[in-house]
Amino acid sequence: MRVAGKAMRTIWPAENGAVEIIDQTLLPHELAIVRLDTLDDAARAIKTMQVRGAPLIGATAAYGVALALRAGRPLDEAIAVLGQTRPTAVNLRWALERMRKAAGTAEAAYAEAARIADEDVAINRAIGEHGAKLIAALHRGKPVQILTHCNAGWLATVDWGTALAPIYRAHDDGVPVHVWVDETRPRNQGASLTAWELLQHGVPHTVVADNAGGHLMRRGMVDLCITGTDRTAANGDVANKIGTYLKALAAGDNNVPFYVALPSPTIDWSLDDGDRIPIEERDPREVTHIAGWGQDGRRREVRLTPEGSPAANYAFDVTPARLVTGLVTERGVCQASRGGLLSLFPERRLKASA
Amino acid sequence: MRVAGKAMRTIWPAENGAVEIIDQTLLPHELAIVRLDTLDDAARAIKTMQVRGAPLIGATAAYGVALALRAGRPLDEAIAVLGQTRPTAVNLRWALERMRKAAGTAEAAYAEAARIADEDVAINRAIGEHGAKLIAALHRGKPVQILTHCNAGWLATVDWGTALAPIYRAHDDGVPVHVWVDETRPRNQGASLTAWELLQHGVPHTVVADNAGGHLMRRGMVDLCITGTDRTAANGDVANKIGTYLKALAAGDNNVPFYVALPSPTIDWSLDDGDRIPIEERDPREVTHIAGWGQDGRRREVRLTPEGSPAANYAFDVTPARLVTGLVTERGVCQASRGGLLSLFPERRLKASA
Repeated sequence: MRVAGKAMRTIWPAENGAVEIIDQTLLPHELAIVRLDTLDDAARAIKTMQVRGAPLIGATAAYGVALALRAGRPLDEAIAVLGQTRPTAVNLRWALERMRKAAGTAEAAYAEAARIADEDVAINRAIGEHGAKLIAALHRGKPVQILTHCNAGWLATVDWGTALAPIYRAHDDGVPVHVWVDETRPRNQGASLTAWELLQHGVPHTVVADNAGGHLMRRGMVDLCITGTDRTAANGDVANKIGTYLKALAAGDNNVPFYVALPSPTIDWSLDDGDRIPIEERDPREVTHIAGWGQDGRRREVRLTPEGSPAANYAFDVTPARLVTGLVTERGVCQASRGGLLSLFPERRLKASA
Repeated sequence: MRVAGKAMRTIWPAENGAVEIIDQTLLPHELAIVRLDTLDDAARAIKTMQVRGAPLIGATAAYGVALALRAGRPLDEAIAVLGQTRPTAVNLRWALERMRKAAGTAEAAYAEAARIADEDVAINRAIGEHGAKLIAALHRGKPVQILTHCNAGWLATVDWGTALAPIYRAHDDGVPVHVWVDETRPRNQGASLTAWELLQHGVPHTVVADNAGGHLMRRGMVDLCITGTDRTAANGDVANKIGTYLKALAAGDNNVPFYVALPSPTIDWSLDDGDRIPIEERDPREVTHIAGWGQDGRRREVRLTPEGSPAANYAFDVTPARLVTGLVTERGVCQASRGGLLSLFPERRLKASA
């Protein structure tokens, strides 16, 4: 998508076999490009969330394997190191599995990583087309009011995004939209990344505290919710950023459609339901402290809690399929159920019965 | 309650007719005492949230009337100025109405303000006794896991608190408890005030992002939710800090009891249901910026959102009575319904039929 009028992706091959990314921990205040030269650079970028979002984590891990092979490090070691960076994202394991099969040489690894990246862009463009129809169908003269949680925009993918792809597509097609952007504590991906993306692309939006969505829905101020997901179970349960479940409950209580956008690599066909999805616990410091920009333009971290008060930091929650109106995939929209998913991915039915 | 081993209230008469309060905007990092000398000092303390919490707002407004009369300002002017400070809190209007009736002279005004403060303490102590029985009944060997939102502790009242009074009472009675403290964006009353209170009193607790409660309840990690309320409609609907409704939905979805603790002055008998409660919109800057303490020990405000992204700041939401397991009042626990409230406050039935 466009940044200051210029088309960008979130990851791209650079000179001498290196790979470049946007350091997303510095957004929205600074657009810094970081160069990844080694496997460890790639692993660190994922772990410290310079790159985040399930599809982008997958693409970064794929390039990480290429960087490792280029330096003569064993494929197995690369896969082991990268596989431990983030436990919840299923794309990570999916991408590493593809690299294991394709990457005999460094050259083959770069080619496969580029394919994974390009496929992600094509998938997200298709999600955008399918989802934009849902938005257009709700247009009744006034802007369609959409609530989203966390960042499932182009910054979370290689380009376009998942949950935001339909919004970009609707906006570009001339359907007026307004997006309620959940701040998304503790890491504030909504306030810092989603707001920045939408601002850069010219999409009207308003940032709200995570606590606000229920009130907005009760007062009829939301026509549609759409979020991404880090892992979808075969029954349509979705693991996504902590707090997603609460918004799905509010949507259900107020008859607001709640959609989840996902590229099919996010589906974990091996999981019967979401209760088996491991939930990452991150550093409590993300709750006790927060970083922002001071009046002097410098990034500063401040403490929010009393010294001595412990904190816990669960990164994801699971939204049961019964609360999800539909899943928006690259092949179309389906019910959040095993039957719904199999209707779009019938090849999985064959596999299941084989 | 106790601070560093010393008993404190949140407001008290000081020398020469002045009144002193704790500046709650500086907690948890600094315990600063502020002296209120004039009506405008009192109004500003309420408006800038140096004092907050429905009962404490009421007590501060009462002393504000006394300060005005002492300076020879008209009673009507004092009531008008104070009545405009916070639109949602019903205690504010209730306290001002009492002052209108009682405060013929400055002396009478001080006496009535002191009575309002002392009555609040007695009410909250009674709420604590009734609510502690609910907590004790859930004790099965392990600590009772309690989730609370915002700050309805002694800092929100003159002493004891409303939602936290049962927790303090249970803890003091030897029932092991552990409190999940919602951070409570945008003003972080949970992370800064509730955590500080519990820490000072020695009650085990863990701060979590507001987004986490649904996950905790799905995983069976919460035995009971309890919050305060700024205004209760006659049918049991409760207006409380934005985000309360989301926690009530999660409690309902997971069969976790959801209690709301309230002193009876918080009941607005004139309101048939909560949908008529006006919801205060506060400065968007509370969403776009946040204050905390730097490593140098200095309070700093940092910007969280991109320049150019608008924000909205709804301060309260309404939780419908159907999601509330029970109301904990100074007269006992009742169903969140007109019938439930009238069973504890039968004198209102006589009034209604008069």
